[in-house]
Amino acid sequence: MPRFALIIEYDGGPFVGWQRQENGVSIQQRLEEAVAALESGARRVVHGAGRTDAGVHALGQVAHVDLTRDWRADRLRDAINAHLRPDPIAVLEARGVAEGFEARFSAVRRHYRYIIDNRRAPLTLQRGRMWHVKRPLDAAAMHAAAQLLVGRHDFTTFRSTECQAESPIRTLERLDVRREGSLIEITTSARSFLHNQVRSLAGSLEHVGSGRWSAADLRAALEARERARCGQVAPPHGLYLVAVDY
Amino acid sequence: MPRFALIIEYDGGPFVGWQRQENGVSIQQRLEEAVAALESGARRVVHGAGRTDAGVHALGQVAHVDLTRDWRADRLRDAINAHLRPDPIAVLEARGVAEGFEARFSAVRRHYRYIIDNRRAPLTLQRGRMWHVKRPLDAAAMHAAAQLLVGRHDFTTFRSTECQAESPIRTLERLDVRREGSLIEITTSARSFLHNQVRSLAGSLEHVGSGRWSAADLRAALEARERARCGQVAPPHGLYLVAVDY
Repeated sequence: MPRFALIIEYDGGPFVGWQRQENGVSIQQRLEEAVAALESGARRVVHGAGRTDAGVHALGQVAHVDLTRDWRADRLRDAINAHLRPDPIAVLEARGVAEGFEARFSAVRRHYRYIIDNRRAPLTLQRGRMWHVKRPLDAAAMHAAAQLLVGRHDFTTFRSTECQAESPIRTLERLDVRREGSLIEITTSARSFLHNQVRSLAGSLEHVGSGRWSAADLRAALEARERARCGQVAPPHGLYLVAVDY
Repeated sequence: MPRFALIIEYDGGPFVGWQRQENGVSIQQRLEEAVAALESGARRVVHGAGRTDAGVHALGQVAHVDLTRDWRADRLRDAINAHLRPDPIAVLEARGVAEGFEARFSAVRRHYRYIIDNRRAPLTLQRGRMWHVKRPLDAAAMHAAAQLLVGRHDFTTFRSTECQAESPIRTLERLDVRREGSLIEITTSARSFLHNQVRSLAGSLEHVGSGRWSAADLRAALEARERARCGQVAPPHGLYLVAVDY
């Protein structure tokens, strides 16, 4: 069966997350339903590169799926999109790939962005798209402290207790914080991330930005390798899976 | 009574427009209700700089209002915002102004942005925030043609038949079109605009971008001074009142 890679954008708000679950509608489920409509109702598993949590958005999630027919890529994109309506999930691009391509296991780098709107006024157009933090944050201090986390570390402090990865060791290639007007963007890249890692990092960096934590406190939290030492887990609606490299 | 200027952001989607109307909730009404809560229930008219239509958004609408008390500006902003909850309207800034300041009549320049998402895939996160146009548009051709409309012209073709301005003559200071990825941004500035002018310009420029109209067709439409010659009126949800200069 020909294999296709899909680049997918979604508003995570209405869903229980990427992965199929009993307790609600997932992005994976809706994609599999759309694909089944092209496959005489047969279920084809749509394998994603990253299992985003409930409420987390994607600008460039990647998935692969095996289909019966050898579709023209642009027709496949349009056909799946037609069956996704009216849900806020869109296939931006479809592409034929080699049999050995695995969205999850062939990935060499994942890019996430976490956005804070740091202003007094409530959010209007950006509600559900950013974390609203009213107290003034020092983005330069956040960026400087973040550099202590770049590189290969045991991130036990910054992963969910439910994380199923065998090792808590990951290599952060990049963790940048910059301000643009009232927005603070945290950009991070790594081969792979632990469960809740980006939100745990963003939540702890917020403590640095507000002055509650020093850079040394952040470093001590990392070195403690203890989940209870995580500052806080930032809310899901500020997080975007931006892209996956292969 | 001390006069205050308010800089206001809103998602126009849920409202019948800026102005109070019988047929639904307006942004002006919600602001006046919030202000009344600070004024022992008395109605204070909130005068806006621009009467945005139903569905049109604002990043920097300006309004003025007279209050009984001489508020500290930041407290006034927070107090109004508290009473606007949970509607997607926010006072970004409040400022004490001179008695003679009029949000509408003191304005010397208004800035609008119209955003088109020009891609095949349906919109997800940006739904209701941009006009989705699937056919490929040539932004450079749109920009070049737009320059024929800059300056002082009779814009009868590009205003609503319900426009109440005495004169159809306006001076466009700027009408720029540029592409960034799949987004096409139309940016325009003028002392004032006619009713539906920006949406009429955006809709007609879309015809130029798709190749249906040449630049000469756009120019001929302008010179015809006839509403029926307007290409189309672009939908409201792509339009933003960005800022007002005084």
